[in-house]
Amino acid sequence: MTFRVVIPIFDDVTQLDFTGPAHVFAKVPGVELCIASKGTAPVQTDSAFAIHAPYTFSQCPSADLICVPGGVGIMSAIQDPDFLDFIDRQCRGAQYVTSVCTGLFALGALGLVEGRKVTTHWGYEKVIGDCGGVYTKGRVVVDGNLITAGGVTSGIDFGLAVIAQVFGEEIARLIQLSSEYNPKPPFESGHPSVADEETVAQANPFYAELAQRMREALKAARRS
Amino acid sequence: MTFRVVIPIFDDVTQLDFTGPAHVFAKVPGVELCIASKGTAPVQTDSAFAIHAPYTFSQCPSADLICVPGGVGIMSAIQDPDFLDFIDRQCRGAQYVTSVCTGLFALGALGLVEGRKVTTHWGYEKVIGDCGGVYTKGRVVVDGNLITAGGVTSGIDFGLAVIAQVFGEEIARLIQLSSEYNPKPPFESGHPSVADEETVAQANPFYAELAQRMREALKAARRS
Repeated sequence: MTFRVVIPIFDDVTQLDFTGPAHVFAKVPGVELCIASKGTAPVQTDSAFAIHAPYTFSQCPSADLICVPGGVGIMSAIQDPDFLDFIDRQCRGAQYVTSVCTGLFALGALGLVEGRKVTTHWGYEKVIGDCGGVYTKGRVVVDGNLITAGGVTSGIDFGLAVIAQVFGEEIARLIQLSSEYNPKPPFESGHPSVADEETVAQANPFYAELAQRMREALKAARRS
Repeated sequence: MTFRVVIPIFDDVTQLDFTGPAHVFAKVPGVELCIASKGTAPVQTDSAFAIHAPYTFSQCPSADLICVPGGVGIMSAIQDPDFLDFIDRQCRGAQYVTSVCTGLFALGALGLVEGRKVTTHWGYEKVIGDCGGVYTKGRVVVDGNLITAGGVTSGIDFGLAVIAQVFGEEIARLIQLSSEYNPKPPFESGHPSVADEETVAQANPFYAELAQRMREALKAARRS
């Protein structure tokens, strides 16, 4: 039996939001990974390369698990009816609805996080209330079939946690080993709760502005 | 002043080997990231999507830092004179010569790890001797201007460590914060030294075979 993981991508996606999960999902026997974009043109990422998605939204088969990545481009993407229609259609049929980073706000625009425990990139936590979600601490937050991850690199923890839940710990441990995922970050700087004050103070204004832009994008995009 | 990071890619590259470093390098002001491939066709990755590299080998400008990623495809890539010529040319002019995972063996085929302290994916450690390198423990190993990383996800630690060394800790800490790199792996399973015996026993035969194939590829490709 095939378990289909669908990842929709869009211009200015934060590529590491989904390339981490894609790496681990692609290693699970029986998983069919379908990366999908609106058209056939290469999708520009935030990291100076473009991705050629094997599926367009109209060709992409139905997901067992949909995972929406984030990035600055999600603000435009959620205001594109073709993008949001695709997410909507895929979420309706999926066993698991998931997001990494600001991909959460695509689910939020569809009313899917209303009253649910969720997370997103730390810089956007306060926007969660705008779509009725309940911010919950954790790199990976599970609320029934809704599984959300924090910013960017949390997608790797997320992918392994989902694999453990759906396919069992044995394969998750094996994929963690093959990915040599034994992280040794050079600093304690991966979250405002552990980073030094100067670093947080430098990042805050940047994210305050982005959070405001996300609020406006969400307002323009919300369907419920 | 621009600091140019060149990442050569090839079919069957392990995309997370370089998408992790690409994410962090792309966030450094003044870094120009050049992903390059042999031709203009999309490069197939190990994760069910293809990458459109903005540069071909012949168009790609000279690197200040070259980073060679790995993956099963590196075994064919190092036997392609066009690939190895490109790496050779770029390494000659670069201030830093680096690899992630089995990308090391491209440097090895060129004689660049002879007598140097290096690392690679844990499954290929024993092949390091075949190209005269000295296996050294560590997710990131620095030997002068030669900086090598362990398997796959170690590329993120590597990228941040290099940024700290070249551009200073302040920007490295800021990028770690914006990438929310505060990892919480679900298991202790990211290296044979910490994984449980069953998981290691399951992985070992797989990597023993791959290591043997790498040995043969290296023998066929070696130039010195």
